[in-house]
Amino acid sequence: MDLTPTGMERDTAAPTLGARIHAIAAELYPICRSLAGPGARATLDVVERQIALKRVETPTGTPAHDWATPLEWRVHDAWIRDPSGRVVVDFSDCNLHVLNYSVAFRGRMTLDALRSHIFTLPEQPDLIPYRTSYYEDQWGFCMRYADVEKLPAEGLYDVCIDAEHVVGAMSHGEHLIRGDTDREFVLTTHICHPSLANDNCSGIAVLTELAKTLAGRDLRWSYRFIFAPATIGALAWLARNPEVVDRIDHGLVVSCLGDAGGPNYKRSRRGDAPIDRAMAHVMTGAASTGTIRDFAPEGYDERQFCSPGYDLPFGLLQRSIHATFPQYHTSADNLDFIRPEYLAASHDTILEAIEIIEADYCPLNLSPMGEPQLGRRGLYGPVGGGAQIFDIDAIRWVLNLADGCHSLLDIAERSGLRFRVVAAAAERLRQARLLT
Amino acid sequence: MDLTPTGMERDTAAPTLGARIHAIAAELYPICRSLAGPGARATLDVVERQIALKRVETPTGTPAHDWATPLEWRVHDAWIRDPSGRVVVDFSDCNLHVLNYSVAFRGRMTLDALRSHIFTLPEQPDLIPYRTSYYEDQWGFCMRYADVEKLPAEGLYDVCIDAEHVVGAMSHGEHLIRGDTDREFVLTTHICHPSLANDNCSGIAVLTELAKTLAGRDLRWSYRFIFAPATIGALAWLARNPEVVDRIDHGLVVSCLGDAGGPNYKRSRRGDAPIDRAMAHVMTGAASTGTIRDFAPEGYDERQFCSPGYDLPFGLLQRSIHATFPQYHTSADNLDFIRPEYLAASHDTILEAIEIIEADYCPLNLSPMGEPQLGRRGLYGPVGGGAQIFDIDAIRWVLNLADGCHSLLDIAERSGLRFRVVAAAAERLRQARLLT
Amino acid sequence: MDLTPTGMERDTAAPTLGARIHAIAAELYPICRSLAGPGARATLDVVERQIALKRVETPTGTPAHDWATPLEWRVHDAWIRDPSGRVVVDFSDCNLHVLNYSVAFRGRMTLDALRSHIFTLPEQPDLIPYRTSYYEDQWGFCMRYADVEKLPAEGLYDVCIDAEHVVGAMSHGEHLIRGDTDREFVLTTHICHPSLANDNCSGIAVLTELAKTLAGRDLRWSYRFIFAPATIGALAWLARNPEVVDRIDHGLVVSCLGDAGGPNYKRSRRGDAPIDRAMAHVMTGAASTGTIRDFAPEGYDERQFCSPGYDLPFGLLQRSIHATFPQYHTSADNLDFIRPEYLAASHDTILEAIEIIEADYCPLNLSPMGEPQLGRRGLYGPVGGGAQIFDIDAIRWVLNLADGCHSLLDIAERSGLRFRVVAAAAERLRQARLLT
Repeated sequence: MDLTPTGMERDTAAPTLGARIHAIAAELYPICRSLAGPGARATLDVVERQIALKRVETPTGTPAHDWATPLEWRVHDAWIRDPSGRVVVDFSDCNLHVLNYSVAFRGRMTLDALRSHIFTLPEQPDLIPYRTSYYEDQWGFCMRYADVEKLPAEGLYDVCIDAEHVVGAMSHGEHLIRGDTDREFVLTTHICHPSLANDNCSGIAVLTELAKTLAGRDLRWSYRFIFAPATIGALAWLARNPEVVDRIDHGLVVSCLGDAGGPNYKRSRRGDAPIDRAMAHVMTGAASTGTIRDFAPEGYDERQFCSPGYDLPFGLLQRSIHATFPQYHTSADNLDFIRPEYLAASHDTILEAIEIIEADYCPLNLSPMGEPQLGRRGLYGPVGGGAQIFDIDAIRWVLNLADGCHSLLDIAERSGLRFRVVAAAAERLRQARLLT
Repeated sequence: MDLTPTGMERDTAAPTLGARIHAIAAELYPICRSLAGPGARATLDVVERQIALKRVETPTGTPAHDWATPLEWRVHDAWIRDPSGRVVVDFSDCNLHVLNYSVAFRGRMTLDALRSHIFTLPEQPDLIPYRTSYYEDQWGFCMRYADVEKLPAEGLYDVCIDAEHVVGAMSHGEHLIRGDTDREFVLTTHICHPSLANDNCSGIAVLTELAKTLAGRDLRWSYRFIFAPATIGALAWLARNPEVVDRIDHGLVVSCLGDAGGPNYKRSRRGDAPIDRAMAHVMTGAASTGTIRDFAPEGYDERQFCSPGYDLPFGLLQRSIHATFPQYHTSADNLDFIRPEYLAASHDTILEAIEIIEADYCPLNLSPMGEPQLGRRGLYGPVGGGAQIFDIDAIRWVLNLADGCHSLLDIAERSGLRFRVVAAAAERLRQARLLT
Repeated sequence: MDLTPTGMERDTAAPTLGARIHAIAAELYPICRSLAGPGARATLDVVERQIALKRVETPTGTPAHDWATPLEWRVHDAWIRDPSGRVVVDFSDCNLHVLNYSVAFRGRMTLDALRSHIFTLPEQPDLIPYRTSYYEDQWGFCMRYADVEKLPAEGLYDVCIDAEHVVGAMSHGEHLIRGDTDREFVLTTHICHPSLANDNCSGIAVLTELAKTLAGRDLRWSYRFIFAPATIGALAWLARNPEVVDRIDHGLVVSCLGDAGGPNYKRSRRGDAPIDRAMAHVMTGAASTGTIRDFAPEGYDERQFCSPGYDLPFGLLQRSIHATFPQYHTSADNLDFIRPEYLAASHDTILEAIEIIEADYCPLNLSPMGEPQLGRRGLYGPVGGGAQIFDIDAIRWVLNLADGCHSLLDIAERSGLRFRVVAAAAERLRQARLLT
């Protein structure tokens, strides 16, 4: 990788990049995804039109540590007709309407009997909730509370969920960018949520575009992008790739990358991994309103990567934190909720962290006894007390801490300077043969 | 000990417990105590009516490190008659009136001469101070400043202190509850103060009742309750019980447990002993207004247990900190100043810390590679996004940190959850065979 | 050194001391100093009239790590005449008027041509700036902006800088006070600034007087005072005294010791050296308004002493921090700007830190099992609850922490007591044979 941090100076609001990411998210949004089935495959098809993908199909029932891969879920149609025959809920209007992974059902019943199968959000009466039932056989619908309130009380409702659970395979995709070494930086996100734009069409789309950004760069680490269903997808990948696990140096889980909040970074279980420190630096940048929080075993697949048997250095990047914004897991998490500028900013946040990790090294001052004479090397202004040509502060910090025990990121943290400024100073000092 | 923390759920304001403790304190209050003599024995008699006591009599002059046990002090009568013959101070009214450990005296003198032997509190003119003179031969009285101001200036006063210092023994008592091991948890308080209710009839009474609470429980540690005179009592015990000292894992000094302030816990010299961490957790509980302070070598017998040659893990529990409340060491520290509800709360504070130390252990996750599947074990709600049956946060924290390096208290501290919640989650996971 | 901290009780505003220091500064002020030449020698002459000096002349061109010692600069005369022949700038008025280390020049030119050789402070129009050009051949004048604005635009100006750069030597001086050991405490300041009173006639004068204060004291360390030009002076000294460098335990750079601000102490690169901890203690003293900041590789010669190849424990003491006060490096940094009381306070600040370092040791409690009996040794008041004769808090802290692992300064830091109080308590305990 080019050590000059030019990549960092990109305008993070560049409409082209954001528009590209939003377009991918828009393509992903309508697909009805679940843990396994045609929705996941259609999702990977979208990604594969952008970047090369290794497609992996893990047969139903394959053990994955304490778990096994699930049956595929295929839903063909689903609706409720009221006693007058009017369709009051239709899966084709919005795939959130069906309880995700619901068993098939056909029958007629009173509204009272039906109610126990309808999930609503009374406090958000105009939104459809997103609910799942992966591990218990249930059937159900998710509806706007306001719509349920309008249903006639008398008469019988005709209910249809034309779905099937079939032996097949769970799908995931991987994209690998080979770097100078086979040590890996893994970026991953879940592909199992149906029509929810921020959680997580945004994450899939950002990682897809990020893979294109990194393509062709000179990289020290190999970058693996994993697009997999939540929990069981991560578990299956971990269980079946022990030799890759041993090569992971950095990892990042992403979700909810398109809204106006945050960004927020949740540290890995280790708390001080390079990804944690790089992200902390990015989050405290002048242009960032980012915040950082400590690891907690809730959230997304960092729960698996950071389980005690693995304890891998995976953090979680989000803009608004899941379950803290009112659109979360509702029909309001739609394509209007995510914006090109925030998607681009998320892309750039991850890229900046990658560039820090790539560019970081422990420099060694070749003239460590006292300060070297900067003036005759053109690194110090000609008039003492006058203006300086270069960032003399950064040059002095690098020289002072370049004792083989401090990396550029250490120097940035201790000096309070931005990494890019420290890296630029180090580069000038290398050119002046004062540093290796 | 039963590891389910049911004991913690007791109503801390239970009148029965508080009333029992207050009744013991009331029985102790009138006794005229000092370092050694009949007052100490009468005090231990009161305790022995509640719990079995090993009574120890250490002969006068027995060496105890840099010290020696003192002569017994016996005071039979003490008064001052004014020039008109009126009794203006009478020991039988209040035993604080005599300088504690005062030498005997009989004589007639002017008020001016008498004044140098009278201790008052000019800023609290209606209170009698508590003063001692253990290490210098003095005679004296403690009086209300207002009363002294009213004494006639002319004429001779008749003064009598009918007291004696005799070779005998210093008394202390011990109560031992044997646990599964002979490693010890020592709880101790001083028994040498005369009619001062908070300092320290409250401490004696609370420990007495606590011993009854622990009786019959299944305990990992053996619990030793030591009732002894301050300073010399602790020193004599330490000097004469080196084999017990080597078995002490936890220790607590108590005093001033009955007033409305605090509670306050002062850390041991080590600062991070298990008793320090358990008490810190109790003090930061939602129901607690407790505060914590660092060790300082002043206060009660923690000065001896935490001296550099011992450095034992003894903290100090109080409600109001000694010498910070106006009733301290005055006649206002009476039975009205201590309240049953605060005495019961103090009992429960200590018990909660004991229960944490007893219940703490380092669990090991038996399914550490990723998260185990909670749903099929009934530990996760059936509808994703719906309500949870159990405290899923606590279950996840325990699983995540159960790597053999974190105890339940570590997990509670890192997660910010209450110990009882963490312990309950661990117990459920043990029942589900996910934890040992 | 006498371990009783009586020296600390000096009145820091003592007019005699402050007046003596100010008088030395006043003698130094008019001299036109630069890196090398007669000004440096005249400066050392002034110091040598107060204390013995080893005068060192390092020949021009002598290598010093990455640098070499400079040519001497001798300036005989310098002026500008306006087209009417009036002298508008004259070196003899103020030596700041000539760009320090300026090359010689003689010529006639327009005001426009002249302007590029004149340095001003437009925002401080009545002040002459101090500027240097050590490493580029330039000629120039420094003038009041207001004066330049008044110069007639038409006609030719006659310009003269009668200066020469000659092969000679760079001068510095050293004063050594031998202590009980050859381990060294180095105090140093720069002597290369011309008529700037605070930066740094104040530093030279304070160190000179401090050397007199320490003379004849019984000291554990040897004290070396180095008066040398900035940067190259420190580098040359370091390069040529490797055997002394190995013996340095403590170091301090001083500058700007006479103004009303601060004091401020900047930590050494190590951050926790004894000088850092002693100065931190002095700065947080009740009488001090001192502040502390972390090391940064800018400032004075601590940049050289704390370079990574040396990493010596040198801090920087100042009152106002350089470059933060408006008089800095201007003609307003004159003898009125520095005051006797602040110069004396700076002297005493350094002396207090020295006395802490000299008096610090790790005491050992000879009666560590419990507390020793203070009463029979006259260290505890005769009436319990009554007044104490000595500082019983300090006595108890010393006894408690005198385990061989805590120095007096450790005890002061942990207890929050002043070092002098802790040291006095330790001395009393030594007299009572309770401490070694």
